[in-house]
Amino acid sequence: MAVVNRRIVLAARPHGEPKPEHFRLEEGRTPAPQPGEVLLRTRWLSLDPYMRGRMSAAKSYAKPVEIGEVMVGQTVSEVVASENPAFAEGDLVLANAGWQEFAVSDGSGLRRLDPADGAPSQFLGILGMPGMTAYTGLLEIGRPQPKETVVVAAAAGPVGSLVGQIARIKGARAVGIAGGAEKCAYLTETLGFDAAVDHRANDFPDALARACPDGIDVYFENVGGAVFDAVLPLLNDFARVPVCGLVAGYNLSELPSGPDRSPVLMRAILTKRLTLRGFIVWDFAAMQDDFLRDVGGWLRAGRVKAREDVVEGLENAPAAFAGMLKGANFGKLVVKVA
Amino acid sequence: MAVVNRRIVLAARPHGEPKPEHFRLEEGRTPAPQPGEVLLRTRWLSLDPYMRGRMSAAKSYAKPVEIGEVMVGQTVSEVVASENPAFAEGDLVLANAGWQEFAVSDGSGLRRLDPADGAPSQFLGILGMPGMTAYTGLLEIGRPQPKETVVVAAAAGPVGSLVGQIARIKGARAVGIAGGAEKCAYLTETLGFDAAVDHRANDFPDALARACPDGIDVYFENVGGAVFDAVLPLLNDFARVPVCGLVAGYNLSELPSGPDRSPVLMRAILTKRLTLRGFIVWDFAAMQDDFLRDVGGWLRAGRVKAREDVVEGLENAPAAFAGMLKGANFGKLVVKVA
Repeated sequence: MAVVNRRIVLAARPHGEPKPEHFRLEEGRTPAPQPGEVLLRTRWLSLDPYMRGRMSAAKSYAKPVEIGEVMVGQTVSEVVASENPAFAEGDLVLANAGWQEFAVSDGSGLRRLDPADGAPSQFLGILGMPGMTAYTGLLEIGRPQPKETVVVAAAAGPVGSLVGQIARIKGARAVGIAGGAEKCAYLTETLGFDAAVDHRANDFPDALARACPDGIDVYFENVGGAVFDAVLPLLNDFARVPVCGLVAGYNLSELPSGPDRSPVLMRAILTKRLTLRGFIVWDFAAMQDDFLRDVGGWLRAGRVKAREDVVEGLENAPAAFAGMLKGANFGKLVVKVA
Repeated sequence: MAVVNRRIVLAARPHGEPKPEHFRLEEGRTPAPQPGEVLLRTRWLSLDPYMRGRMSAAKSYAKPVEIGEVMVGQTVSEVVASENPAFAEGDLVLANAGWQEFAVSDGSGLRRLDPADGAPSQFLGILGMPGMTAYTGLLEIGRPQPKETVVVAAAAGPVGSLVGQIARIKGARAVGIAGGAEKCAYLTETLGFDAAVDHRANDFPDALARACPDGIDVYFENVGGAVFDAVLPLLNDFARVPVCGLVAGYNLSELPSGPDRSPVLMRAILTKRLTLRGFIVWDFAAMQDDFLRDVGGWLRAGRVKAREDVVEGLENAPAAFAGMLKGANFGKLVVKVA
């Protein structure tokens, strides 16, 4: 017996900011599971900046969503019917069900969640892909040493907030960049960052320099654009720059006007002997057990904190997603679907 | 008793290409060595692209030459008078005597050369700083694997030619970029490169793509500019880019016109998970013994070759140096001073 399924598909490829017309809410039917399959009901949908890349046809590390296809996304889903002996009704699983209420899966790629390990939605945030992005990129590429200065942007978001908190645990100085006084206060007062700088302030480059009197040894790059321009002159010799995102550029439909500043970047790489290295979290899949042990332990011990920004209802996902790309969210953005 | 010394000093800082008026040939006197000192006579002076950086006041990894100071440079020098028991008259040493005929040294930083290990001028090339730059950058940062494609520009020069030859020894495919048919033929016919591409050809980007049918896994960056623009789209996922020079930009007095292409570079770093890492040879000083053992051994066994471009007379150093920055040299550029 099929169930009625609401889903959000890609209606058109955006040039620039995603707008309502680039998405379409559809109603369809999801068939009953066949032998070996399970029927999943989406409880939580994760919204993450990488999804902007999937909306474009440009070549990247993953293939784009096609027009008319359901938007991709990780979910916490409940098994509501099972024809697969590995899963029982009522199981909570981490899935890639996308922006929809129901999905059928043959079980591959599902991971059963134990509610004792954390609140279900946390497996989309601090205990999931964003948390592991922070953990692996900072420790494997950034390699912060005691007393070094670690800077991260989008620092009130799920990746940046954990980058700064792990930097502190490793004995480094954590400086966060965020938009607005409220987020900056959250970084220093709630998360224990050593300093926070508002990138919307007129004197942002000077304020960042004042917050980093000994320069910058690790810059965890997830935004690019004007923030990176302010960071570059402050990088110390032998600084490391893990590059995991460039949110500021995701909506660019053309290159910024000149001059061409790429020689400035290359010259800095040479004369300061910088390391820039791009990564995605799955490049470090082998570190998953270490990640869950360390970050799970720190979370239970209260040494790291995570904040969520919850949106109610699948139909509100497109607007929330578009807002996130402009920094409107405060914490890990998740959609409560059911 | 002082000796008459001819020396070339920095007369003015160039904006753009170095010209004769930026240098001045002076005659002065070098005093007799005091106790603990030696008097050195320059036999060979090395000319290297990094010297262009020292002519500018811009911050870099080493302090600039001041106006009126002798141009810096590594030399093979002969001890012609010694008040230091560690050195005897007639010893050949590797020194940093600069662009001049005589210098006094307290012995610090001098390394005695054994003529049995190689021709003296080779210690300025394949057995010296350029050779070690190739060896350390390729093996420590580039880390070529068997069957991978390694691309290097300025490939007929002392660094590039060794990069390609070591890549071959490590089982990788070596593709050299050089200016003109004669240099390209030298790469494939004499040095054993798998392919050579002339960067002056009108279809250079296409020719490079044809020479790299499986993409590029290691790009040893020593020129920048248009060559790097052609390389970037061909880099494979997880490619490594040791950055040791940007000769194409050394004479730039302003940034290229727009658009600003740095977002293209950052996006490639992210989506292809590239590693770009700047270095100078002294960052790997601990590898000197390995370098001399390996490259010295390969050279004696005929597995690697080196070519020199010899200029006679100190007074011809400025013109030869300016020519080198435009690719006029063919092989390691050295000045026979005495």
